[in-house]
Amino acid sequence: MLDQTLLPGEVTQVTYTEWPQVVDAIRTMVVRGAPAIGVAGAMGVALAANRAAAAEGSRAEFDAEMARAIPALREARPTAVNLAWAVDRLAGMVADHEGTPAQIASELAVAARGIHADEVDRCVAMGQHALSLMTRGARILTHCNAGALATGGYGTALGVIRAAYAADPTVTVIVDETRPLLQGSRLTAWEMQQERIPYTLISDNMTAALMAEGRVTHVVVGADRIAANGDVVNKIGTYGVAILAREHGIPFIVAAPTSTLDLSMPRDADEVRGLSLFGRHASPDGAPVANPAFDRTPARLVTAIVTEQGVHRQPYERSLAAAWTAAAS
Amino acid sequence: MLDQTLLPGEVTQVTYTEWPQVVDAIRTMVVRGAPAIGVAGAMGVALAANRAAAAEGSRAEFDAEMARAIPALREARPTAVNLAWAVDRLAGMVADHEGTPAQIASELAVAARGIHADEVDRCVAMGQHALSLMTRGARILTHCNAGALATGGYGTALGVIRAAYAADPTVTVIVDETRPLLQGSRLTAWEMQQERIPYTLISDNMTAALMAEGRVTHVVVGADRIAANGDVVNKIGTYGVAILAREHGIPFIVAAPTSTLDLSMPRDADEVRGLSLFGRHASPDGAPVANPAFDRTPARLVTAIVTEQGVHRQPYERSLAAAWTAAAS
Repeated sequence: MLDQTLLPGEVTQVTYTEWPQVVDAIRTMVVRGAPAIGVAGAMGVALAANRAAAAEGSRAEFDAEMARAIPALREARPTAVNLAWAVDRLAGMVADHEGTPAQIASELAVAARGIHADEVDRCVAMGQHALSLMTRGARILTHCNAGALATGGYGTALGVIRAAYAADPTVTVIVDETRPLLQGSRLTAWEMQQERIPYTLISDNMTAALMAEGRVTHVVVGADRIAANGDVVNKIGTYGVAILAREHGIPFIVAAPTSTLDLSMPRDADEVRGLSLFGRHASPDGAPVANPAFDRTPARLVTAIVTEQGVHRQPYERSLAAAWTAAAS
Repeated sequence: MLDQTLLPGEVTQVTYTEWPQVVDAIRTMVVRGAPAIGVAGAMGVALAANRAAAAEGSRAEFDAEMARAIPALREARPTAVNLAWAVDRLAGMVADHEGTPAQIASELAVAARGIHADEVDRCVAMGQHALSLMTRGARILTHCNAGALATGGYGTALGVIRAAYAADPTVTVIVDETRPLLQGSRLTAWEMQQERIPYTLISDNMTAALMAEGRVTHVVVGADRIAANGDVVNKIGTYGVAILAREHGIPFIVAAPTSTLDLSMPRDADEVRGLSLFGRHASPDGAPVANPAFDRTPARLVTAIVTEQGVHRQPYERSLAAAWTAAAS
């Protein structure tokens, strides 16, 4: 894995040989971004199988080791629905399989690589679908990082931006820094530089002023989780950007593969929340902080949801359910 | 002056003996906050007069030195309307005066101290007027720092918060960090700790999520400049908070003395903009940034403006003009 915690200062690849290292990597955000975490989880299951098969024990011993690895990997990041989705998919292959550990391990390795390849294909498809939502010279604001780093290769929101820029080199990007963990300034700005896509970095609270000046034509973000009705759970701050976009008549577009859909998530659930490091160096010692990691953007503020199946519009229920069914078949 | 650039880590008082040092202090934000800058400008004029009088030269030499000091102090921070207001007031005393340099210097010292005392009195009055806008157990969000530090002793927005807390000890405060210069986490959080008023620190992009959860009942901010129609120029991010407040049905209250009114500012002016240091350590080298220092909040988003004259409601034109006239008389 590319260690995302060291970017943009250091570009370091880390190799893992045991599944608990993959659990740690997901927990400590060496890998982050819902689709990339799903790929990492699948790779973790395949790695666990590979190591267990190499021990040349019985099928029962193999199954016992997989019964340790699978739930640990599945729970390494509870908010990433893609992780459960990917791990469950491989877990099902183990449960149903009547072969030897070596046969299972070999098939899981193929399946994990397939999930990775599919993830990239889905991002490329989203980018193509979203072209219909773009305008010439679009100035696209994005929040957090839903790029190649987050998705195992191409990007959801940044995949849309890549495709838009490839189709129209006058496209430019506005990157908000995304406090408190700065995924925008650390990761998205870095990816834009790698791709040589012109961008401007702002702090989160400058968004409204730039919109008022006409400097933003589209907002494109990824999603950690999308409910059946189109409500979007994503990095803290997304909901505020959605309100500001609507106030200024700017389309607010969510790009996420169908693996991000959680059709069982209730409409009115409390927003998913989490705790993570808050940069407190600038505040008094012991300053009390609130630190929600995610917020929930109601579907009424979402102009379009782009999945690998196409562009979905309000009301989302039927269209998202159909996309889910099509993806599962 | 208390050097605000060193807070909250260091509490350091600096003494200035020459007016150019005061110009530098205003420029480098040793002192900041529109009303405090006005007090500093008045003190700077008085200091210039004191030193020029001590040189025991002619009245013409005294006037020549004041003609150097006055425009330099007046222009040290072009966006602070209170600075021009305070400096002009003392400059008028010099121009109209027929006495000796020593007499003039003595009267300017009294006038500068009077401006300081009046500024504190105005803040106390604002706090009392704003009590009518509060509710029991109010959870007040504030942006940037419009506190004692910004006003020479009591605070505009934080004066309102102090008065509300004094009247109701169940009042709590939400402080947004106010990127890029972190006046919220560095200064407002520090002031809340000094005053022992319970507060919670958040990053700017958490505001919408907290509002959706019902954790904010009022927004109270200061202003750098208020137009005749009630449009408010204030620290970048204020406009976005105002939109979010309206979306959630939360009153958005601006507390500012009448010296902040700029009845000559056109309704449709471009927002006041400035350049200041952007914390770029977390982004790639050479990342292009946009860095507006202020934004403009249209009057339609402002629930009430509190001056030392009272609480003003929409439409603001007549009420603000009357407050201006009352303050000037």
